[in-house]
Amino acid sequence: MQADFWVTDANAGLLTDAYELTMLQAYWREQMIGPAAFSLYMRRLPKSRNYLIACGLDDVLRFLERLHFDADAIDYLSTLGRFDRAFLEWLAGLRFTGSVWAMPEGTPAFAEEPLLEVEASLPEAQLLETFVMNQVHFQTMAASKGARVVHAAAGRQVVDFGLRRIHGADAGLKAARAFHIAGVHATSNVLAGKAYGVPIAGTMAHSYVQAHETELDAFRAFARAWPETILLVDTYDTVRGVRNVAALARELGDEFRVRGIRLDSGDLHALAVEARAILDEAGLRDVRIFASGGLDEHEIERLLSRGAPIDAFGVGSLMGVSADAPYLDSVYKLVEYSGQGRTKLAPKKRILPGRKQVFRMESNGESSGDVIARAEETLPGRALLVHVMHNGRRTQAGTESLEAARSRAQQELARLPARVRAITPAEPQYPTRLSIELERYWMELSANVGESAPGDGA
Amino acid sequence: MQADFWVTDANAGLLTDAYELTMLQAYWREQMIGPAAFSLYMRRLPKSRNYLIACGLDDVLRFLERLHFDADAIDYLSTLGRFDRAFLEWLAGLRFTGSVWAMPEGTPAFAEEPLLEVEASLPEAQLLETFVMNQVHFQTMAASKGARVVHAAAGRQVVDFGLRRIHGADAGLKAARAFHIAGVHATSNVLAGKAYGVPIAGTMAHSYVQAHETELDAFRAFARAWPETILLVDTYDTVRGVRNVAALARELGDEFRVRGIRLDSGDLHALAVEARAILDEAGLRDVRIFASGGLDEHEIERLLSRGAPIDAFGVGSLMGVSADAPYLDSVYKLVEYSGQGRTKLAPKKRILPGRKQVFRMESNGESSGDVIARAEETLPGRALLVHVMHNGRRTQAGTESLEAARSRAQQELARLPARVRAITPAEPQYPTRLSIELERYWMELSANVGESAPGDGA
Repeated sequence: MQADFWVTDANAGLLTDAYELTMLQAYWREQMIGPAAFSLYMRRLPKSRNYLIACGLDDVLRFLERLHFDADAIDYLSTLGRFDRAFLEWLAGLRFTGSVWAMPEGTPAFAEEPLLEVEASLPEAQLLETFVMNQVHFQTMAASKGARVVHAAAGRQVVDFGLRRIHGADAGLKAARAFHIAGVHATSNVLAGKAYGVPIAGTMAHSYVQAHETELDAFRAFARAWPETILLVDTYDTVRGVRNVAALARELGDEFRVRGIRLDSGDLHALAVEARAILDEAGLRDVRIFASGGLDEHEIERLLSRGAPIDAFGVGSLMGVSADAPYLDSVYKLVEYSGQGRTKLAPKKRILPGRKQVFRMESNGESSGDVIARAEETLPGRALLVHVMHNGRRTQAGTESLEAARSRAQQELARLPARVRAITPAEPQYPTRLSIELERYWMELSANVGESAPGDGA
Repeated sequence: MQADFWVTDANAGLLTDAYELTMLQAYWREQMIGPAAFSLYMRRLPKSRNYLIACGLDDVLRFLERLHFDADAIDYLSTLGRFDRAFLEWLAGLRFTGSVWAMPEGTPAFAEEPLLEVEASLPEAQLLETFVMNQVHFQTMAASKGARVVHAAAGRQVVDFGLRRIHGADAGLKAARAFHIAGVHATSNVLAGKAYGVPIAGTMAHSYVQAHETELDAFRAFARAWPETILLVDTYDTVRGVRNVAALARELGDEFRVRGIRLDSGDLHALAVEARAILDEAGLRDVRIFASGGLDEHEIERLLSRGAPIDAFGVGSLMGVSADAPYLDSVYKLVEYSGQGRTKLAPKKRILPGRKQVFRMESNGESSGDVIARAEETLPGRALLVHVMHNGRRTQAGTESLEAARSRAQQELARLPARVRAITPAEPQYPTRLSIELERYWMELSANVGESAPGDGA
């Protein structure tokens, strides 16, 4: 068997919770292969989020198009000694042949609204649960955080610096894309540039300065190698670092083309003010000030509200791991089997039964509220769930460019009420409700489940 | 060029911050290819961590053995139009040929102690920064959180359920391994079973119960497919669910071999007490109670301190993303270049210069404190940093089994003072200090850097 130190198309089918496979063998034995529908949604939003930005769909569809268990995977499962040989043979032939409806990437989403719904045979629809949640949860969390940081930066550029402390290699790659959809301008992550075309940015580290005899030596050498660079000025003393930039400008005269300086520690407001004054006095009005180090949307808003002369922000760990809300209450729930709606009664964990649609209402160009409805309803407003996969293949709507998703996010965010776009908790929250039909269906099923199902066999 | 939707050995070199490559071109131009040493360490620990568990070294060494830029990577970099052709040719031939000293995986670590030190030419040692930090930071964070959960469970089994909400595919795979090193018994993640041999565990989801007409139907069918399973009892009403398990036991008689039930919502303490009573009354004393749903070390300790009759725990998101401390203050800093120690003076961000060693002192079989020393010192106590890579190849010490790392963690954790092992903040903290030699070296270099380097060119 091959080594599996990386997740790839070849082994992604095994990146699943073991219970998906134990359930699959049970379904296979019972021949419970009727049509099922599952909804992926967030039960509620973190207190610090007024909205989410749907993200991760492209990876989900790619996964579903390629989902399979190769000989190596089947061999491994057989070594566990718990699966039937005939089941494993059936599993080896399994492909995803169902349909997916989803909110396109970049769509603002709220609690209980399906980000995606899957319609397929029960085993197929069950099997994909873990992987699909892993991608949609993380990417939606990242895009949602990124949109807040971009909002706080109020038009100034934001660069993703998160790779070194983000949770693993896949998160680093996918988050750079999610942040870009959310409006982040560029990333430090070179592979994300190659994979997705996200603009990449990066200049120098403290080590470069340290490795030279003096800071000015380092600045001089770096500006020779990269004339239009941004120089990191806080290795020894920020103010003296800025003076060294001014000294280099005097030294190089017309050849000085350095675009900016980066502050990475200390009181960023005070240092930006002082740096701006030194630069201006040296005639370096075009040299921009870039700030990084422990930034998030709140710190950026605080800096800008006090008038800090900062032109761009590098944002790392706090955005990369969505530090104030590092997970969402995401679930993937069975809502229909064999034509019957399904629900669940665990406390505070209701499941809205049946396939659904979400309608976003607008007035005067502003989103005024969402209605979660049954799939077959037609209500006022825009229908947000789109048919993105059919018979296991992407539809036209399931194939879109990164730029299309990024534009959507920008446009849709602009339509949200200002209090919802803000980084402080919205009061009142963005209104969402169930349609009358869906409310009635949920009540009806809950009552039935409560009466007929459990305990009565005892 | 090929698609890069997954990180693999082929493209991992590009999973880097752009500034590593811009600095490399500058070093290459300046021919700054002298020997350098870098330290990877945590500047400080989160308030909620008394210790960390070093983890991620195996992936680091694998990366370093395979690090290269293939034609596809070089082609991509050349399309950016910012790198010299001659530099890219040099980059294509670059391999890691240096040495690594590191704390073996599973070693408890504290603030400012190097988790690893790299000695290589300046470009080689610089280039690996982002990837190595990405893996060591995340895996150390995960192992450190896992150890706390295991401690709280006080000998009861803990199973990792985090995959669906962990940050991406790579984190899911690597965290399962890190948690296992930290003492977590098993994971739901099948691929982690295949990749590392971590025991895998998993039973059924709510969807299985929902897909059947009644809960008892579902239990009967699942117990037929998987006789020694654990049944999930909270889909509709936990107490009635437990009664349905008792009903199934009566129905099956001697053929009933169900091993346990799982509670996944509600007041876990009250429900465990009630479930235990129902099971005992039905003569099902061997049926174990498994609890999951929003658990972390604090909730587990609370449940057990109140005597909840719970036999095992499934722990998901809160452990998976280390929710109370979702990032650590990790850095990778130049400490020596061309035989001279290097430091940095940014406020609260000191760098201890030169290569180092960490000595752990013991008295009466208990770790009593650590001394961070210069590499060439010999002090009382065990030296924690081991030579794991030489000339770009693993040494014998750089090759060890997962079980060896897991045993080390268990033994080393047992030696920590009880207040440090506890999940509440240690008072006083575990003592660490600098050796007299290192303290002197740091003072000497700081003074010199302050006088000679920055600003004076102005």
